[in-house]
Amino acid sequence: MSGIEVTYRFPPGVDAHREAKIIAIGQTAGTWGERWADRSERLRAHLGQVLDVMTLSDGTSRATVRYPLANCPEGVGALLTMIYGKYSLAGPARIVALAVPPGWGTRCRFGIGGIRSAVGVPSRPLVMAIFKPSLGLSPEDHALILRDAAFAGLDIIKDDEILPDIPECRVQDRLKACLPVIEEVRRATGKTVLYAMNLSGRADQVLETARVLVSEGANALLVNALTYGFPVLEALAADPDVNVPLFVHPAFSGALCGSRDWGLDYSVVLGTLPVLSGADAVLIPTHYGSLPFSESEEGRVKNELLARGVFPVPSAGIHPGLVPRVIADYGNEVIMNAGTGIMDHPEGTAAGVRAFFEALDRAGQGKSFEMENVPEGPLKSALRQWSR
Amino acid sequence: MSGIEVTYRFPPGVDAHREAKIIAIGQTAGTWGERWADRSERLRAHLGQVLDVMTLSDGTSRATVRYPLANCPEGVGALLTMIYGKYSLAGPARIVALAVPPGWGTRCRFGIGGIRSAVGVPSRPLVMAIFKPSLGLSPEDHALILRDAAFAGLDIIKDDEILPDIPECRVQDRLKACLPVIEEVRRATGKTVLYAMNLSGRADQVLETARVLVSEGANALLVNALTYGFPVLEALAADPDVNVPLFVHPAFSGALCGSRDWGLDYSVVLGTLPVLSGADAVLIPTHYGSLPFSESEEGRVKNELLARGVFPVPSAGIHPGLVPRVIADYGNEVIMNAGTGIMDHPEGTAAGVRAFFEALDRAGQGKSFEMENVPEGPLKSALRQWSR
Repeated sequence: MSGIEVTYRFPPGVDAHREAKIIAIGQTAGTWGERWADRSERLRAHLGQVLDVMTLSDGTSRATVRYPLANCPEGVGALLTMIYGKYSLAGPARIVALAVPPGWGTRCRFGIGGIRSAVGVPSRPLVMAIFKPSLGLSPEDHALILRDAAFAGLDIIKDDEILPDIPECRVQDRLKACLPVIEEVRRATGKTVLYAMNLSGRADQVLETARVLVSEGANALLVNALTYGFPVLEALAADPDVNVPLFVHPAFSGALCGSRDWGLDYSVVLGTLPVLSGADAVLIPTHYGSLPFSESEEGRVKNELLARGVFPVPSAGIHPGLVPRVIADYGNEVIMNAGTGIMDHPEGTAAGVRAFFEALDRAGQGKSFEMENVPEGPLKSALRQWSR
Repeated sequence: MSGIEVTYRFPPGVDAHREAKIIAIGQTAGTWGERWADRSERLRAHLGQVLDVMTLSDGTSRATVRYPLANCPEGVGALLTMIYGKYSLAGPARIVALAVPPGWGTRCRFGIGGIRSAVGVPSRPLVMAIFKPSLGLSPEDHALILRDAAFAGLDIIKDDEILPDIPECRVQDRLKACLPVIEEVRRATGKTVLYAMNLSGRADQVLETARVLVSEGANALLVNALTYGFPVLEALAADPDVNVPLFVHPAFSGALCGSRDWGLDYSVVLGTLPVLSGADAVLIPTHYGSLPFSESEEGRVKNELLARGVFPVPSAGIHPGLVPRVIADYGNEVIMNAGTGIMDHPEGTAAGVRAFFEALDRAGQGKSFEMENVPEGPLKSALRQWSR
């Protein structure tokens, strides 16, 4: 593939042939007059090309445009400006697919294999928790929660995405409070728990905070790539001093993807773009969780991530009763991420984690999750709480 | 105002009271169990509050939620994560207004007054051009175009937003080629032309490129805030070494604003958010240009910008024949920005610039723009080309 190929979908009634040509010219070299006649060859080399236009039975059309690689040899910021910048203002059109040549983009440093190495778990699904409540806890509260969860076997924990670096709970103070717990767990059990710390601030502060946190011992980071920009994620992924896994949160993606006729498909925004920006793991909603999300959209995001070795992290409304469904969809290459589904377990955080591992064992053995077949214990309590 | 107030619009059929409560709780501290009963006061202080819910005659509803300032004392990245992060995935809702306490956000350093000082034009509308063709020109071509335009009196020129830092036309080479022209014009006419150079790359590269360019003499920068992220704009605006006006481009804003029921209003995305991130000038479409844009939306964006002294830059399809309309809408506090409307003037770039100044003079004197009343000259040629 010699260029960057983008497929646009147009609603019924739009002349897709015409729009595709407008995109191929208007989003590239544009038109030029007599003055540049002697530069024509050079200018033409920057024009986009309409590869394909088709109208489907529902009246929508799809057009694929190929952009010369020379127009955007690197950078997701420039890529998005090129493929949907000014044209996003021109009328209803939605980007439904994006393909770049092999080697284009920032490769993740960890991905599935690297994260598995870091937590020392070669093959089973990983279990991840979110510190809850999101706001209002002290750094010491975080340490208490982490202790309960980590000694129960948790693999990864993360800040809530809406917890920025605020005076009452500074991110460096959270790290200072939690690092001794991570070390204590490591010494006692041999196991390293990853703590994905939420980055915030101006772009320069995000990059500097990441460096400082990692130098002080942070072993994972959480990036709100949609609200901070993919170029910030790219910078983190390229920084040799930020050598920890980067977890990408989908916050704000609905602003780009929620509409039918505008914006971009979730598979692009939560799949292709994070992958091209160096994400190691991406949180995504499921079609049976607490957010509305279609099965096909979830499947397409998952496929984009897995194709490049990036960990999918089904999230939002995940609880132990859903473990069989998650495994049916994802197999073992998955990080199951629960907030209240762990933290609000009726017997506490540790029981919340144990319920997940009990569920993993039970699902692995093909055992029933019907209430009457599950023995008393953390899983049964979780099922009572959430699976009705 | 003690908090950050956000107004959401819901389509007909949505229970706005219910959704507003979900937002006020789910996008803040959330819920908590017995374990944190002794922290209740502290946690409650982080909860959002539904201020107002109303249903309009068209069936849509509006709800205003107030977020505690403590949840997001600074940073547009954290702000967007808070006000529309996870909830953006929850169902159709659109942010139509955003108000922050005075002092919140990054103030622009230049704005209308600073840009007027830089170009030495105290009160008339400013005229800005875009280098065209967008891609395929050499740095020397840029210098030739700039020379023609600047000696004709142009105030500001900018790169096309889709021209990144590519090997055949490096941004530093463009600067090296154009600086002598800017200096030559300054010596000959006493006038400084601003050249807003397009930034690209990873976030760290954007910030570093900005510093290098400014240290080498660049006097303005162009930021694709939507594709690079508002936190990148905030970082540029806060960097003491990047002490030049920042022009914000609206590329990609349609992805967030195009739909009726999802995303955010243009007045927020091109008005409130750039203003809070330190933009000095913001390019916006007009309701009579080459992009579809409503008069009311344009007016709301304009008002958001002017209220904080940020220059509105009507763009896209602007040509000399539209000068009376632009002035009728904006008065003098406006930068008129034309790409092909200058560069494709039948008598060349310099005539394209002169046509704008002729139009400004004529409009200022209240003279007719009817073809038969306009004397032969650059303006008449422009009218023949574009005003039929």
